[in-house]
Amino acid sequence: MRITTFIGSSRENGNTEILTDIVTKDIQHHKIYLRKLNIKPIHDLRHDINGFQPVHDDYDQIIQALLNSDLLIFSTPVYWYTMSGFMKNMIDRISQAIRDNRYPQLREQLKTKHAIVVTVGGDDPYLKGLPLIQQFKYTFDFLNMNFQAYIIGEGHRPGDIAQDKQAITQAKLLNEKLKEVIVKGSF
Amino acid sequence: MRITTFIGSSRENGNTEILTDIVTKDIQHHKIYLRKLNIKPIHDLRHDINGFQPVHDDYDQIIQALLNSDLLIFSTPVYWYTMSGFMKNMIDRISQAIRDNRYPQLREQLKTKHAIVVTVGGDDPYLKGLPLIQQFKYTFDFLNMNFQAYIIGEGHRPGDIAQDKQAITQAKLLNEKLKEVIVKGSF
Amino acid sequence: MRITTFIGSSRENGNTEILTDIVTKDIQHHKIYLRKLNIKPIHDLRHDINGFQPVHDDYDQIIQALLNSDLLIFSTPVYWYTMSGFMKNMIDRISQAIRDNRYPQLREQLKTKHAIVVTVGGDDPYLKGLPLIQQFKYTFDFLNMNFQAYIIGEGHRPGDIAQDKQAITQAKLLNEKLKEVIVKGSF
Amino acid sequence: MRITTFIGSSRENGNTEILTDIVTKDIQHHKIYLRKLNIKPIHDLRHDINGFQPVHDDYDQIIQALLNSDLLIFSTPVYWYTMSGFMKNMIDRISQAIRDNRYPQLREQLKTKHAIVVTVGGDDPYLKGLPLIQQFKYTFDFLNMNFQAYIIGEGHRPGDIAQDKQAITQAKLLNEKLKEVIVKGSF
Repeated sequence: MRITTFIGSSRENGNTEILTDIVTKDIQHHKIYLRKLNIKPIHDLRHDINGFQPVHDDYDQIIQALLNSDLLIFSTPVYWYTMSGFMKNMIDRISQAIRDNRYPQLREQLKTKHAIVVTVGGDDPYLKGLPLIQQFKYTFDFLNMNFQAYIIGEGHRPGDIAQDKQAITQAKLLNEKLKEVIVKGSF
Repeated sequence: MRITTFIGSSRENGNTEILTDIVTKDIQHHKIYLRKLNIKPIHDLRHDINGFQPVHDDYDQIIQALLNSDLLIFSTPVYWYTMSGFMKNMIDRISQAIRDNRYPQLREQLKTKHAIVVTVGGDDPYLKGLPLIQQFKYTFDFLNMNFQAYIIGEGHRPGDIAQDKQAITQAKLLNEKLKEVIVKGSF
Repeated sequence: MRITTFIGSSRENGNTEILTDIVTKDIQHHKIYLRKLNIKPIHDLRHDINGFQPVHDDYDQIIQALLNSDLLIFSTPVYWYTMSGFMKNMIDRISQAIRDNRYPQLREQLKTKHAIVVTVGGDDPYLKGLPLIQQFKYTFDFLNMNFQAYIIGEGHRPGDIAQDKQAITQAKLLNEKLKEVIVKGSF
Repeated sequence: MRITTFIGSSRENGNTEILTDIVTKDIQHHKIYLRKLNIKPIHDLRHDINGFQPVHDDYDQIIQALLNSDLLIFSTPVYWYTMSGFMKNMIDRISQAIRDNRYPQLREQLKTKHAIVVTVGGDDPYLKGLPLIQQFKYTFDFLNMNFQAYIIGEGHRPGDIAQDKQAITQAKLLNEKLKEVIVKGSF
């Protein structure tokens, strides 16, 4: 099972990344730091007579990762009750990618992908993070992807996540499950 | 009443902007096109020993607009069931702005501001746009801003919003109300 | 078009009923006051060896209304951020009704039905009533019913709804639309 | 710490009760089966000139439990994406209870109470159960109660919950935490 983790945090070693690393511990995976890529915001030209125009940035790396993975892990801190701007721009550009002539198979292939969301917030994330989870659900539903699991953790200062026993335990359980999935070959 | 509208769309004359223009029709207001500004994603340094670092982009224009307005209108299309990346980056940076020594009064002043959200989506926005509204609510609650109203509209192709009688009517009613508020001097 | 309105309020002439009456003004419809019926809570025997047992109460009237209507209007005040207990018991019993041998066609017929929700609350219903709308959506989705529209109104004391211009206007627009639907013969 | 668990299921030994029992394992607590009590739906007379009228049923047992507990555990299966009708009627009547002259201290005392929600559903409860959690949050916020934790589990047939490792683990962690709270004397 090929796994890519998209890290949406703006800083190093954030709580969300720590929690996500537990999910993928001892499992081969590819990690993409969105903050290190140059990803431009979408310019919505769906309805323009000429359609979308080529964008000169690093987004093709995202498309390759989408194509070449079976499991996509979206790891984002809760910023203002939804995903970070880094991750939002990455998601927005999917609208262009699924219409990109260079990747005619993308839309169809996404239907075979599995998705996991890992998020950590500081202000009551178990409750105020729920709209974020709902948005990911609508997004995966639209793309016919399989939303396998999500984990919400709480953390205020760096490293706090280690104190969130529930989130840590969920991450470990999910790690075990992924290892089983790898052995079985399917979810 | 000083009004600023933040336009979060990536294209000209989008449905959301059309709907928002009805809300502000014949009312003096300032309009900021986020897509025309250079706004960098936040680099979360809240917990760094040196704190946030100055960012060389156009965000000070946003801060000035926040300070100098009584009513802030957040106008964003629904992109993937939440606000556009343009608007998300603008919101994310508020975390830095309220800690910026150059604007010590910002946080306190935000408590006196009123907010309106206008959004148009193509995929069942009256239902699937609800998490977006909830996130804005949590955001305004956190900042102690007053969430006066929101309008959700539906539109698939450019100009479609004109067919959404409910949204158009809500926008007209809100326009009338704002004119009354201006006369009264308060909400 | 045959229309049934289910009134979930516990009191006469509540704000929700007033608002709902605007939606059905000058349109022939059948009105069921849930508070005037004897509807027992569900006893979930789906997994019991003998299955559900006959219940001696007025629920058959509900089933007849479901079968004999093209449009179902669910009219409930917001009680504690969701529907009233009257309406909840009515909804819960659908689990039994769709397994009732006396009505083998119910489940299939529900797929042809259209649904509208009208609700009025006193505590920020435009925001805090959103989970209620989401639940109705999930319910209609499960039953493959068509969720045509919802209206949220605000009211604290009896009659207050008349002051909620937005809700009143939405109700009038929906009333006009229903009249068009009746002429056209379909949504 | 005095604990009362309100069981909202309509059947014996349901998945939700099993999960809840793990939360309270080896901890002294009081259990109330709502289905075994006679609790009438609310008759909303807040605005009636004579106010609420005495209701002859078993609701006083609920009020006593609310008064005499420090922690209230709301245990309800997900029925149609929200709480059961049994639990809804119980909640609805709080509107009357907090205005009942016989219990003038109820409203004030509720502010000192802690709340936990345990729920199990069969249709994607980790996602479609989120509006239910949001409603409980709004309810506890309104009453100024402390929403300590919630657990969502998945189960289709009786006993299924044992297979939901995540929910079981969360319940065990919460059980451990409650034991610590009892020793400490506070949350």
